[in-house]
Amino acid sequence: MNQEKLLLGPGPSNAHPSVLQAMSQPLIGHLDEDFLQIMADIKRMLQATFQTQNELTFAVSAPGSAGMETCLVNLLEPGDEAVICIHGVFGNRMADIAERCGAKVIKVEAPWGEAIDPDQVREALKICRPKLVAIVHAETSTGVLQPLTEISELVHEVDSLLVVDAVTSFCGTYLNIDEWGIDAVYSGSQKCLSAPPGLSPVSFSARAVEVLNARKTKVQSWFLDLSLVSNYWQGAKRAYHHTAPISSMYALKEALNLVLQEGLKARFERHLQAHKLLKVGLEDMGFEFLVSEEYRLPMLNAIKLPVGIDDQLVRDKLLKNHQIEIGAGLGGFAGKVWRIGLMGENARPKPVSTLLSALKEII
Amino acid sequence: MNQEKLLLGPGPSNAHPSVLQAMSQPLIGHLDEDFLQIMADIKRMLQATFQTQNELTFAVSAPGSAGMETCLVNLLEPGDEAVICIHGVFGNRMADIAERCGAKVIKVEAPWGEAIDPDQVREALKICRPKLVAIVHAETSTGVLQPLTEISELVHEVDSLLVVDAVTSFCGTYLNIDEWGIDAVYSGSQKCLSAPPGLSPVSFSARAVEVLNARKTKVQSWFLDLSLVSNYWQGAKRAYHHTAPISSMYALKEALNLVLQEGLKARFERHLQAHKLLKVGLEDMGFEFLVSEEYRLPMLNAIKLPVGIDDQLVRDKLLKNHQIEIGAGLGGFAGKVWRIGLMGENARPKPVSTLLSALKEII
Repeated sequence: MNQEKLLLGPGPSNAHPSVLQAMSQPLIGHLDEDFLQIMADIKRMLQATFQTQNELTFAVSAPGSAGMETCLVNLLEPGDEAVICIHGVFGNRMADIAERCGAKVIKVEAPWGEAIDPDQVREALKICRPKLVAIVHAETSTGVLQPLTEISELVHEVDSLLVVDAVTSFCGTYLNIDEWGIDAVYSGSQKCLSAPPGLSPVSFSARAVEVLNARKTKVQSWFLDLSLVSNYWQGAKRAYHHTAPISSMYALKEALNLVLQEGLKARFERHLQAHKLLKVGLEDMGFEFLVSEEYRLPMLNAIKLPVGIDDQLVRDKLLKNHQIEIGAGLGGFAGKVWRIGLMGENARPKPVSTLLSALKEII
Repeated sequence: MNQEKLLLGPGPSNAHPSVLQAMSQPLIGHLDEDFLQIMADIKRMLQATFQTQNELTFAVSAPGSAGMETCLVNLLEPGDEAVICIHGVFGNRMADIAERCGAKVIKVEAPWGEAIDPDQVREALKICRPKLVAIVHAETSTGVLQPLTEISELVHEVDSLLVVDAVTSFCGTYLNIDEWGIDAVYSGSQKCLSAPPGLSPVSFSARAVEVLNARKTKVQSWFLDLSLVSNYWQGAKRAYHHTAPISSMYALKEALNLVLQEGLKARFERHLQAHKLLKVGLEDMGFEFLVSEEYRLPMLNAIKLPVGIDDQLVRDKLLKNHQIEIGAGLGGFAGKVWRIGLMGENARPKPVSTLLSALKEII
């Protein structure tokens, strides 16, 4: 048995004991009616948590990056134009995948730690006719919460599709797929949902489904091809596509249950309050946030490392002496930034005070 | 809590209680040294079970079909020729994926329920210069065990790569990657390994790695791109690629532990003995096997439905009254064939006698 650690990095977060326990249930077949019922329950609960009526709402049988790839490989065909907004690692990853789809990528970039300005998207839309515009709602590499409503309007004015990365925001801060007109969204199970990593909740609007149905070429990935996967997740005859990760789905169902029992509004507020508590504590110690207050993610706190603090040494001490994981900086932020996650089960006063005490002891 | 069912279909099989229990261990970070150690342990144990020294041996973070796709999208580039042997559903799936890679597919086909004759491969190799020849070792849709050694020689005589689907054979019958000269192999966690579904063990020979390194184009899948995934699984600096499914990896490690404690030879023999017991029982009841004895898989028994037996009715009664799942026929075998799996934990006398008693009661 591993020693329990407090996971305050960019995910995974700690799972609720009942979620871990759910994984130990006996296995059943992936076409068993009891399992199809679990899939139906998960779909319904994902619709509730994504705040959408979208029929095509389910969990990809692989981690969040496979959810990202699912959205892009299904919506893009060779030669399509795609506007990809980049203000961190995950925007870059989307651009990489879109290029692998044979799309012509138009990049809209903001410095890491800042949000994309809607005017940048407006300008980009003047020089191309993109099939989709993709943007990260919660940049896990920088801690930026990206406003989406204005950009969504711009995208739909030109009849393009809005693809959103909600890996870190889902179940932790306000996200309304239908109200915001998001056409394709993907997330991960291991962040504010506090389930084990390995599944990627996704949802597609009716507009997106029309685009899928109008494809001229086969999707380049068989495993992620929605024309095949959707026949397993919905319809009268549930056709075998792949063997679903049964135990992970048990965990996902239980984690979604907990979210809906708590209520989305209360859960978002809990994440915000934990963030505020951390903010006061860190600022008392002299730390500064990377992102300006307006665009700050509550569940992923990117803070600047003061001069004189040894990044690796402090993180090692936190992990080895205090069993607390926090996240290192990615890319250009390596050694300059820490990423402190307060996600799902960990967005509570106790983990915040545990971390602050440990940091005070070490620094 | 679900009622425990006896899973005698084409997988998942029932997991050992200690494997299910392993999934309830507290989560840790995907870059935590303790987790990197688990990955190293899994790699070492996969090398032992695959009987290979291959450095590039690991578990894809998604089910077996993603393992299949990993092998093909990494080894094939647009315009490459690929010989795909088809004698069931999974050969067809390989051909589909290879075509999605832009490869020119040369199909070598045998009737479902029969093995591919090496002479067929010999003939195919006269009319093309394929980059790889792909074949299913254990066709889960038909119950055929495909001999590989002669085909392997033919493939290597023309400097091609041998890609093998070992989803159902791995850990249940003799499979020796190095001795047989297999260049790329993929399996699943939920068959004879008796772990929950969701991971796909894979291994690549030094020859295959050379081909990977010589690619002229990017792999079409970012998620499955071995040039990226391998930096997470090996090397001095373990680079973040995706968030690994931590809990599923705990289960995989425990399942591999159990296999190695038992010993491969004993495990193969156990599968064979369970098959023989089932064979006697079924033949006593008048059932006939689909596959001739020489090519019969021990862990996946395809039997013909006698006239007068209602496929769906009997399988429903087995599942609802006896909590036993067996597999329906796929494709052209729907309604004509049953597939009885004796995999991993279930390759024992008890599950065989439980099934035979239930069948006698129903029929």
